[in-house]
Parts: sequence; structure tokens; C-alpha cells
Amino acid sequence: MPRLRLALAQTNPVVGDLVGNSRQIMKAAHEAAARGADLLAVGEMALTGYPIEDLASRPSFLKAARNEVTHLSQELHSAGLGELVVIVGHADGPFEPRLIGTSSAPTAIARNSASVLHHGQVMATYSKHHLPNYSVFDEYRSFIPGDELLVMRVKNVDIALVICEDLWRDGGPVGRVLESDAGLLITLNASPFERDKDEVRLPLVTRRATETDTIVAYVNIVGGQDDLVFDGDSVVVDGSGRILARAPQFQEHLLIVDVHPKEATDSPLPENVRLISLDPRHPSQPEITQDVAVLPDDNQQLWNALVLGLRDYVRKNGFRSVILGLSGGIDSAVCAVLAADALGAGSVYGVSMPSQHSSHHSRSDAEDLAERVGLHYSVQAIAAMVEPFEAELGLHGLAAENLQARVRAVVLMGLSNSHGHLVLTTGNKSELAVGYSTIYGDSVGGFAPIKDVPKSGVWALAEWRNAFALSRGETPPIPENSISKPPSAELRPGQQDDDTLPPYDVLDGILEAYVTRKLGAADVIALGFDETTVNEVTTLVDRAEWKRRQGAIGPKVSGMAFGRDRRLPITYRPTKNS
Amino acid sequence: MPRLRLALAQTNPVVGDLVGNSRQIMKAAHEAAARGADLLAVGEMALTGYPIEDLASRPSFLKAARNEVTHLSQELHSAGLGELVVIVGHADGPFEPRLIGTSSAPTAIARNSASVLHHGQVMATYSKHHLPNYSVFDEYRSFIPGDELLVMRVKNVDIALVICEDLWRDGGPVGRVLESDAGLLITLNASPFERDKDEVRLPLVTRRATETDTIVAYVNIVGGQDDLVFDGDSVVVDGSGRILARAPQFQEHLLIVDVHPKEATDSPLPENVRLISLDPRHPSQPEITQDVAVLPDDNQQLWNALVLGLRDYVRKNGFRSVILGLSGGIDSAVCAVLAADALGAGSVYGVSMPSQHSSHHSRSDAEDLAERVGLHYSVQAIAAMVEPFEAELGLHGLAAENLQARVRAVVLMGLSNSHGHLVLTTGNKSELAVGYSTIYGDSVGGFAPIKDVPKSGVWALAEWRNAFALSRGETPPIPENSISKPPSAELRPGQQDDDTLPPYDVLDGILEAYVTRKLGAADVIALGFDETTVNEVTTLVDRAEWKRRQGAIGPKVSGMAFGRDRRLPITYRPTKNS
Repeated sequence: MPRLRLALAQTNPVVGDLVGNSRQIMKAAHEAAARGADLLAVGEMALTGYPIEDLASRPSFLKAARNEVTHLSQELHSAGLGELVVIVGHADGPFEPRLIGTSSAPTAIARNSASVLHHGQVMATYSKHHLPNYSVFDEYRSFIPGDELLVMRVKNVDIALVICEDLWRDGGPVGRVLESDAGLLITLNASPFERDKDEVRLPLVTRRATETDTIVAYVNIVGGQDDLVFDGDSVVVDGSGRILARAPQFQEHLLIVDVHPKEATDSPLPENVRLISLDPRHPSQPEITQDVAVLPDDNQQLWNALVLGLRDYVRKNGFRSVILGLSGGIDSAVCAVLAADALGAGSVYGVSMPSQHSSHHSRSDAEDLAERVGLHYSVQAIAAMVEPFEAELGLHGLAAENLQARVRAVVLMGLSNSHGHLVLTTGNKSELAVGYSTIYGDSVGGFAPIKDVPKSGVWALAEWRNAFALSRGETPPIPENSISKPPSAELRPGQQDDDTLPPYDVLDGILEAYVTRKLGAADVIALGFDETTVNEVTTLVDRAEWKRRQGAIGPKVSGMAFGRDRRLPITYRPTKNS
Repeated sequence: MPRLRLALAQTNPVVGDLVGNSRQIMKAAHEAAARGADLLAVGEMALTGYPIEDLASRPSFLKAARNEVTHLSQELHSAGLGELVVIVGHADGPFEPRLIGTSSAPTAIARNSASVLHHGQVMATYSKHHLPNYSVFDEYRSFIPGDELLVMRVKNVDIALVICEDLWRDGGPVGRVLESDAGLLITLNASPFERDKDEVRLPLVTRRATETDTIVAYVNIVGGQDDLVFDGDSVVVDGSGRILARAPQFQEHLLIVDVHPKEATDSPLPENVRLISLDPRHPSQPEITQDVAVLPDDNQQLWNALVLGLRDYVRKNGFRSVILGLSGGIDSAVCAVLAADALGAGSVYGVSMPSQHSSHHSRSDAEDLAERVGLHYSVQAIAAMVEPFEAELGLHGLAAENLQARVRAVVLMGLSNSHGHLVLTTGNKSELAVGYSTIYGDSVGGFAPIKDVPKSGVWALAEWRNAFALSRGETPPIPENSISKPPSAELRPGQQDDDTLPPYDVLDGILEAYVTRKLGAADVIALGFDETTVNEVTTLVDRAEWKRRQGAIGPKVSGMAFGRDRRLPITYRPTKNS
């Protein structure tokens, strides 16, 4: 059987940055060629970034993307890399809008495409057939589906090419191209991280490989893009289901692997399959060692996802530092450590903002955290700024509680405006769900690192991060007291979260059923939760939608995140038990 | 030719409120029956509200909706209205998720349906075939398309039934059902207002009627739902293109009209068309007079849309009053008058919050406005609250400017929390586009009445509203000085908007090209705008996305509103000329 050396580049594109993204691909091509690869594949839309959202409807953007594909093919050739077959994912267009099937999408003028570059030419372009239009994906809004199939004959191996969702659909193009008896299937992906998604993704790749006795090479982009974190985790699986190579998660990586696919036969290709023949010629090199990364445990994967999501939001949006309020509580402590892991402690500014209601430990725990992590720390008492509002407006009760949170927000935003720090908002998913926060108060900020982690998950992460530090002989960064003390917003004397909310284990259980599993209130009660509690919680969730709409984005790490993953009206009058 | 008496009910549903929406339909049915109607039709999803967004993926909601359809049919019968044929739009399900065409929408379990109720029974249900998935619509995410057609034979007239987008698609079900030689086509709609949309909608209805020589009855819902304003404007057009009846815009209305459609023939129906026969029996009444509303001019339509959007947001979300800062400028003046028109001046609270940089006229113009309109007015100077922040934090430049806006926000939110007022934020579309506002400052609020009106449009509206008052012998509500003085944020001495921004006529021209027409920067420059100005403006627009994401919703009244109509990434590094 022939040997092909594949290079899969896990690049980290920035949406819109055609020149920068192209540079990443050039860099990968140089390395791939130097290491003797026949073929380099990058992820779905690696040239344009993903998701491009409504940039897909801007003709000038599509033209620029197409020009960049041509330019890249020429640049590869000029750099002496013309022998390498390069498969690059990009948006393509503009095309005439087309009405497809029963859907009306007359505004889609783009395709989600992958082009094959060789000898300075764009040899062929494949467009994604199956367009995901659920969860965070809106591809039916953005793209016209492709209707042609492509097989490349490289060194007498037939290589079929598909894009992401194409692989997931039974009876889709994957089935069709494999009828062609291809020896290798390459799939370009932009598949965001979710907890436990690997339990679905790898088995799918393996099933496709084994059910057709074909080698499957799966290449994913990596990096944070707004609320999505692409985890990489590119993998090559052979027809027996064996993992031949696997890239590490959450980092840029060039995965190189030698594969031995079956040779092309002369049997006729199925209808509508285009065949192109390419023949890369370069000196052959000795077989390379296998590169198979091992996935870390769940909490570490989650931590790494949050770190990368935060780092890339900061970096790609041109910030150099972040600022956040340190309350001494668990949420702000975890956010501070995530930020330090993402950016280095020297780029993290923590501010303790005690009020008359702050306990002594709220300040000492914050200070303890700052010392352990080594971040910049300052104290700014808020009484002098709160009092004039109270004197002028005479606020009581909830209005007075919110006032404290809003004065802190003005302090943080003032410091942000003065020094250019990005403000992090530290609310967790449980709080966000029930609106347990002050809008324009503790919710202010450009990025919310743990918005998709429920309170119980925040505790688990804190425990894990401390244990991880210990396992490496480092000081656990999160003060034990921040983990063990009962949560409190400290906006009135002696306040604790469970004065207002059910205990977090109960709350998180109800939220899992109502938000993630989309059960109605009656069905949640049927699971065994207290009726009054369920009705209170679901009402809070419904009523907090207006706050969530005005909240910062943050990394989606679950199967159902607030944001574009869950779109519900603000104006909503629920019917009982619906 | 037989005579049919049609009743089209323009109801104003609340999303989720099955009981309340059903009550509206019962009320319309009582009146329709009393006036001798044979058939009553309400708008698309009038029973569930529209759009229901991801409620479409909640099985308990769909079951409750289906139960309510059954319940409504029984209730009509019990109330002695069983002879009336009632066509009601609703969400239906849950169905098994289905993969359709090349799109992957495995989560859709609902249909967008219309049921025919008669004699206490649900006689038949039609489901929408063509699902809009562009602009503000995400129906491919929400719904499984229908695949059956329905014709009702009522008093020996064949009546075809379609839903909204079905009417727009050439070669869609409309064509198919009209092959059946139907005498009447009823279309249920949830079609939001946009400026100049009537120039498209009525011609379409007319074209469908004339091209097939069939009477077309078009019934639309009315009312505000989050960012959408449904304008009603239900209409009946005959096969010669004549308007037989037309309901007024922006109000609930029962439109009753006698039509004389051609009789059913015995020619066989096209394949896949289901025929049901219904025979309503009640005493016939004399022919009724025609009810044909006349549309007001463009500015009045726009004003009415903004008033209804604001009123319904307030009312449907359980507020009784609104509060807003009055700066003496045009934007807050127009918002205050809109609120007074929507809710009555007694429900509007205006606060003047002068700072050291406020001109004398900023307070006197605000006071003048309050007197003209008769709204609640108070003055709350901010110096005493600004100074402690300056003393504690030492803010300068932009940080000090933003501070003033944020202190005003804390004041407004404090008053809102104390008194239960909804805070209105008064920014216009031009400001929102370029981020000319202070986040967590003047942008705070639950609703943004003029967020889709560019500055030049705000002036035009103010002039129109004043002229409208004069034409009715009323005092023009907006002080002339608020209209004529140069716009200023008054955050530093002598500041004017055009210190920072191009003149608004230039800015709005560039925004129209870049935002609405989706031209790239190079194409905008090619229209004749100054290159430097275009590059500055487009960069501001791109960079303000994070602020817009955290902004309040407000009524979409243009063909391209910020919000779900225009979805762009925050993290975006544009390539030159793309």
C-alpha cells in the first residue's frame, strides 16, 4: 500500500483577518513541507475564521476571501511549497442567492468551502452540503449548500473531502464519496468544545472509519471566538478504529502522520463526483513516530477551555490586561486564577471594594488570593461614594443593595477607562439563570469567564485547580476559606445567598431540568423537586431574560449555554405547566 | 355567486399566554358571529404569540398549545358559536425531529400551523411550508416544514389556506392550491412593520389575487413583541386587484367584509390537497358597508409603530410607568413624547440631571418639554455624587466624561428600583452604530424607543410630531430649541457631537451604505464619501459591537436594525477593503 504523509494544522484564526490567518497557514505549510508531508489540511474556514455570521452576506468580504485563496496558492508556489497539496477552508462567494428546498433563504450568497491548492493553482473547491442550523449554528442563514462531491487522486490514493456536519449526517456526502472506494477521507471542522463532546465526536469519527474501512483524518480549528472555544483535538483513525495520531486540545499544533491507505481502483466513480489528480513529488523520508496526545480529565479540559476562551478574547480584541472586583468569594477567586493562567498574573488587576456590609474575611480572603496568585491588588472602599447617592436619593431595600453594586461598577469602569484594562464580570451560570445579580452593577464587563459554569461546577473547578497545583508542588491559588464559606452577596447585614435562593445543589438540579433539558415546570416537579421551589425558580429564569440579553459574552462549555444557544423572548407570559 | 361574510381579527397576542390569547379570539368570535360572519380568521400564531423562538423546542409548551386549540374549539361550541368556522394560527407539536433537505435541523419538533375549528371540533390543521430564515426570522431553527395542502369547501366555495411566507414564494403552495381553482385564498401572517414595507406587501397580495383571479384575504397580527412591531394592516383584495376591505394599522380590529367568490367546481383536486367540507348555517343578513382604512403618511406610520412597540413592551412586561433622563436634547425629547403618547403623560417621569458642564438651556429646554407634555419632572444635580469618585479615583479625560454618564445611570436605576419605573434609554441608531454613548451610562435601560431611527430621522420625527400637534390645534410638544440647537453630550466644556463625529447627514449616509446595504469600506468610498471619514466610521461601527450586544432592545422599524437582524462577531479583525 502507498504511503502518504499527512499534516493536519490546528490553526487559531481570527474572524475577518485574512492576512493573519493566511500567514498561519503559510507557517504550517513551511513546517509540513520541511517534514516531508504530501498533503496539508487546515480546519473549516481557517482562512476566514468561524463563525463569520453575517459577514457571509457582505459581497466585499466574500470577494476578499476568494482573492486570498488565490493569493495563498501563489504564495505557496513562490515560497517553493508548490509540491505540497494544501486544503484550506474558507468562505466563498458571492453567488447568486438561491432558494433551497422548502426553506426561504434568499439572502444567502456564500458557501462554506474548502479549496485544494497545488502548483500555484486553486485546483478545485468543495462546498459543505449539510448546514447545521441548531444550537449556536445559523448556517442556513449564512450559506448555500454545496451539491458536488470531490475526490482527489494523490499518489494513486483516492482522497474524499467533506466539511464538518457532512460527516455527521447518515446518508450524506460521506456515504456517497465512500461508494467511490476512497482510501482516505479528510474532514475539515470548526467544532466547538462542550463538556463530554469528545464522547460523541471520537466515536463518530471511529464509526465512519470502521463502517467503510477507510482512514479518516479529522482536523479542527483551535481558539476562542467570542462565546465559542474550538478545542482542536484533531485526530486520524484507521479502518480498524485505531487512533493513528491525535493533536493536543486547546493549542496550535501541526499533527504529522504517515498513513497507508488502499490504492485507487479503476472502478467508475459515482455520479456527481469530480476527480482531480495531483502528484506531489519530493524526496521520501523515513517513517515518522506516532504523535498521539492523551486527553486530560474533565475538570482540566474545562479549565483549559475557559483559559483559552478568556485569553483569546483578550488577545484578539487588543487588550493587554484585565481588571475585576475581588469579593473574597469563590466566583471572583476562580475568575482571577483563570485570568492569571490565561495572561500571567502580571496582567491581572484585582480590586477589593469593601462596603459597610462587607465582612472582615471578604477583604482578607481577597488579599490572600492576590498574594497566592501574585496579581496586582488594591483596595478601594466604596462608602464615600455610596453615601452621597443615599443622601440625595434616599434609597432603601433592594434599591440600596443595588446601589452598592453599581458604585463598584462605576469604580471598575473608571479604572478600566483610565488604564485600558478589560473588565471581567464574575457571575456564574446559576446566578445568571435566576437573575441573582445587579444589572449595571456586578454584571458589568466585556467578558464573563464562568457564565456557563453553574455554582456547583465553580466549586468543583476550584477544588480541582488547587489539587492540580498541589500535584505540581505549587501553592494552591484559591484560599480554602473562599471555597468553604457560605456564599453571600454582602449587600446587607448577614445576607446569605440561600436567604433568597434554594441551596445551590437544588437550584442547579432544577436549572439542569428546566434550562438544559427544556422540561416544563410540571415535568420538573415530577422529577421530585418541591413544587413551590420549581415555580419560583422557573419564574425567576423567565424574568431574568432581559438582564441576560444585556450581559457580557463568555465561553460556552456546556451543551446549553445562555446566549445564542438558547433564544427566548423577553416579553413572555408563561401558561401554567407549559 | 355565493356570498361569504369574512371576519379577519387583528389580535394582539402575548408570547406564551395561551389563555389570554385564546380569550382575544373568543371575543372576536362573539363579535364576528353577532355580525353574521361565516368564517373568522386570526393571524399566524395568534394563539401562541410570535415569534416563540426556542419555546418551539420545549415539548410541554407545544402540548399546551395543542391542548388550547382543542379547548378553544370546545369553548366556541359551548358559547353557541359552533357554526362559525374559525381559523386559528398556533404552534403545533411535539413531532419527531426530521432532517429536511440539505439542512440539518435535528432539534426542530414543532410546526407553524393553522387549525380549522367548527362544530366543536378541530377539523383540520395546515402547516406552513416555507420557513423564512433570514433577517429577524429563524424559522428553520424552530419548525419542521409542512407538506400537505388544505382546501375547505364552505358554502360551496373552495377556500385555500396558507401561512405568511407561503404567499411570497413563487411556485409554492399558493400556486398549487390555486390550481385547485379555489375561490378564496386566506393567508395568516405575522409580518412585522418596516418603513416602506407596505410598498412590497400590498402589491404582492394584489399580484397573487390578480394572477389567479382569486379573492385573497390577508390577516396579520398586531402589537409589539420585544423588538418587533406587527402592524396589522389586514386586507382583502379581489381578483381584479380592488381593495375590498382594509384594517387600520397598529390597533386591534375586527375587519368584516362580504365577498362573492366563484363557486366550487367538480374538477378533481391536485395531488396532496386535502378537502374538508363545512357548512355554517345561520340567518343571512343584509350586505355590509365596506371598511377600508387609509394609511397615514410615512412619518405618522413610523411614529405609530414606535408608540405601539413601546406601549406593548411596557404593558406586556407588567410595568405601569417609565423614567428617562431629560437632557434638553432632541433624542430624550422625542422619547418622552413617544412615551406620553404610548402611556399617557401621567405615566412618564423625566429627570433633568445637570452637571457642571450642562448649559443653561439643557435644563430650561427639559423643563419646557415637561411642561408642554405634562409629564412628571424633577431635577437631580449630579455634582455631589460625581465629586467623591473624582476625589477617590482621580479620573481624567474620557474616564471623567463617562463617569458623569454613569452617575446619571445610577440615579435613574435607583429611582427605577425604588418606584418600579421602566428605564428608557434614549440613544438613536447613528449613536448606536458608532458607539457614541457611555456603556452602563446613558445606555442603561430596559427599552430603547428610537434605537432604529438614525439621528436625521429623529429630527424629521420631531418636526412631524410638532406639525401634527399644530394641525390638531394642540401645543407642539417638542421645544423648538431642542430641535434647532447643535447636538452635544455636554460631558466637557463646549463639547459638540461634530467635534468627534462627522456631521450627521454625512454619518447617516455612510451608515446607510455600510450597515444597511452591507457595502465594504472601499465600495462606500466609491460612492463619493471621504476615504478617511469612511475608514474612521466603519472602524467605529465594528468596534462598537460589544456595546450593542449589551444594549437594550427597541423596535425594529427599518429594513436593517441592529440586533437579531444584523449578527456580527464582536471579535473581528477586518481586512482592508473587505
